[in-house]
Amino acid sequence: MSLPPLQLKKNTDRRLKRGHLWIYSNEVDVAKTPLKAFQPGDQALVLASTGKALGVAVVNPAGLICARLVNRDPEQPLSKSLLVHRINQALALRDAFFPGPYYRLIYGDSDLLPGLVVDRFGDYLVVQIASAGMERHKADIIEALVQCLKPAGILLDNDHGARELEGLARYQEVAHGTMPDTLELVENGARFRIPVGQGQKTGWFYDHRDNRARLQGWCRDRRVLDVFSYMGGWGVAAANAGAREVVCVDASATALDGVATNAELNGVADRVSALQGKAIDVLKALIADGETFDVVVLDPPAFIKRRKDQKAGEAAYRHINELAIRLLGRDGLLVSASCSMHLARESLTDIVRGAGRHLDRHVQIIAQGGQGADHPVHPAIPETDYLKAVFVRVYLP
Amino acid sequence: MSLPPLQLKKNTDRRLKRGHLWIYSNEVDVAKTPLKAFQPGDQALVLASTGKALGVAVVNPAGLICARLVNRDPEQPLSKSLLVHRINQALALRDAFFPGPYYRLIYGDSDLLPGLVVDRFGDYLVVQIASAGMERHKADIIEALVQCLKPAGILLDNDHGARELEGLARYQEVAHGTMPDTLELVENGARFRIPVGQGQKTGWFYDHRDNRARLQGWCRDRRVLDVFSYMGGWGVAAANAGAREVVCVDASATALDGVATNAELNGVADRVSALQGKAIDVLKALIADGETFDVVVLDPPAFIKRRKDQKAGEAAYRHINELAIRLLGRDGLLVSASCSMHLARESLTDIVRGAGRHLDRHVQIIAQGGQGADHPVHPAIPETDYLKAVFVRVYLP
Repeated sequence: MSLPPLQLKKNTDRRLKRGHLWIYSNEVDVAKTPLKAFQPGDQALVLASTGKALGVAVVNPAGLICARLVNRDPEQPLSKSLLVHRINQALALRDAFFPGPYYRLIYGDSDLLPGLVVDRFGDYLVVQIASAGMERHKADIIEALVQCLKPAGILLDNDHGARELEGLARYQEVAHGTMPDTLELVENGARFRIPVGQGQKTGWFYDHRDNRARLQGWCRDRRVLDVFSYMGGWGVAAANAGAREVVCVDASATALDGVATNAELNGVADRVSALQGKAIDVLKALIADGETFDVVVLDPPAFIKRRKDQKAGEAAYRHINELAIRLLGRDGLLVSASCSMHLARESLTDIVRGAGRHLDRHVQIIAQGGQGADHPVHPAIPETDYLKAVFVRVYLP
Repeated sequence: MSLPPLQLKKNTDRRLKRGHLWIYSNEVDVAKTPLKAFQPGDQALVLASTGKALGVAVVNPAGLICARLVNRDPEQPLSKSLLVHRINQALALRDAFFPGPYYRLIYGDSDLLPGLVVDRFGDYLVVQIASAGMERHKADIIEALVQCLKPAGILLDNDHGARELEGLARYQEVAHGTMPDTLELVENGARFRIPVGQGQKTGWFYDHRDNRARLQGWCRDRRVLDVFSYMGGWGVAAANAGAREVVCVDASATALDGVATNAELNGVADRVSALQGKAIDVLKALIADGETFDVVVLDPPAFIKRRKDQKAGEAAYRHINELAIRLLGRDGLLVSASCSMHLARESLTDIVRGAGRHLDRHVQIIAQGGQGADHPVHPAIPETDYLKAVFVRVYLP
């Protein structure tokens, strides 16, 4: 099989050689290999300016990221057979490190399948495609997943914003078998039921698994506040691990219905309650009422989605962290998370530091968590390392 | 009680206001408050250039760090009573988060006791004092520890290099009760016996507890190589968690005697063996013999002790990580640690990235660990955040 070449400009191959997988449109020598000669999803043999073959990429001529390396072996383009190989490699990691079939099975670039995300809920898979290149190979992807996992159903949940950057339409479709209305999963010993294709992300945030496990070790007999609770991933887990009382806060009634369902599923409904409202309003009201908690979990949506949101986003993190600290008793635990790729780990530490200083509390960071093993970090692609959770003891010195 | 003032120069109070505890000698307004008027261990009321009281510090006029804040409350200088209060605050954290009395009880600045480290081994305490200020208050420290913990013995293990920076002599003394020749501890369910006052650090590296626990979850039936094994903290823990075979490597015969003792203590001596020699030589010999392992743990001493060692130190980390990766089978796990404060987390990630690229392996960082909760990070003092452990899956793509 002979692929058309995609030639890079001089000195633009350095990032790829370091291990990265992305090629930006301004790095292509379009005089020699015009991007417009490619259709979305076409494959190309990537050549350094010297002519050296660097591997095979899938092209989206209209994207800012105009090509993504799928193989460094120039002889093996993306195919059902390569997909099966990569899926099995990803599966081997999850099989080795997880007790049950509930995890992110494919995490894009880190599993050498750029643009593809697959979450597994037992016999069901939820697939998200984020690049025009992968979109073209949709049929092969589904076939490869069926071959490797024999799932009862696959949902293509392609209704997310990242697709617009690639000029892709948003849609959902059942691509294999049948999908139930709800899915079940087990995480750190707790059971959860979630709606399909209408939640956030693929329906669940598997990335915080390790951080929730850590919380579970530290919440027996404690009163816990779970802010931005979604379906109770933290709160219900805490109750399941013996927390005395859990209050979940979310703006969405659907999310809080999910909390109630999941508390019921785990037999902890008597210890889990919910407050609907905007986090900041609810926290202020709790402070005004003189409420205190032993543990406050803050797991907000990304406040910094784009670089231009940096300043406002950091201010939002500062504000919410300060409110959370005010709700802790004399000696409490703040679990402060951020999924903003644009908020550095050190910045989150500094936000916690500043909030403590402002309120004259001593803060000690007793653990720093990240993504679970099913969201492996690609060490050449900083974008794959986005999740932070700091566990902070806060007390009056 | 009226303390002599220590006045700072203009704009030098910013770091203290952000939460830091150290004052450098060039920040003091020596015209107004000469440092030479102080004896080591004298306390002073620290004043901003505006005259505002910032708190109480313990002074070492000869140190580069000439004073360390012990209290922001100007009315409460360091005393036995403040020591008791701080020890109880530190104890409350450890009581809440640890299953038994085996941990670092006091971690200097992070527990608001700059210059003081105390490790607890059940009924025995090993104390290290690293500042001339704390040295002066030695008697109060011992009395406060006795009051709070009623230990059977306290060893002052002041035979370490940090003391020379403060102009302090090196010595060891039993400061209370009696000390046995060996101490026992339990970590993650494994028992260890260590010699007293002749090992590295205080005799044990409690800081890696969480990382060893993570390894324990991931090593059942695996063949594990523990490089720079010391007394078997990783290797014996791995065997105890079901590893099929563990090989410990250390240059020190005493350390390897400890490995044998500890393997015996846990009933895993049949699965733990040792190779004595310099790590690099042993790894090269294993490679030459065609040996492979499922897991390689690299927990070297700090290769970068001072800034000037940066380049050579990073090269040493690169070299040893590459050798370790070469010893992994087709799909293996590298646990790569660094306790060098001067090696940033990102640099360790990058070293692993580079080693993988050089050997044409795909590397995925599946977990990033740090210090345990008994080594809390002070968010205003980056020096307190020194430990890194990356868990890296390495495979042929």
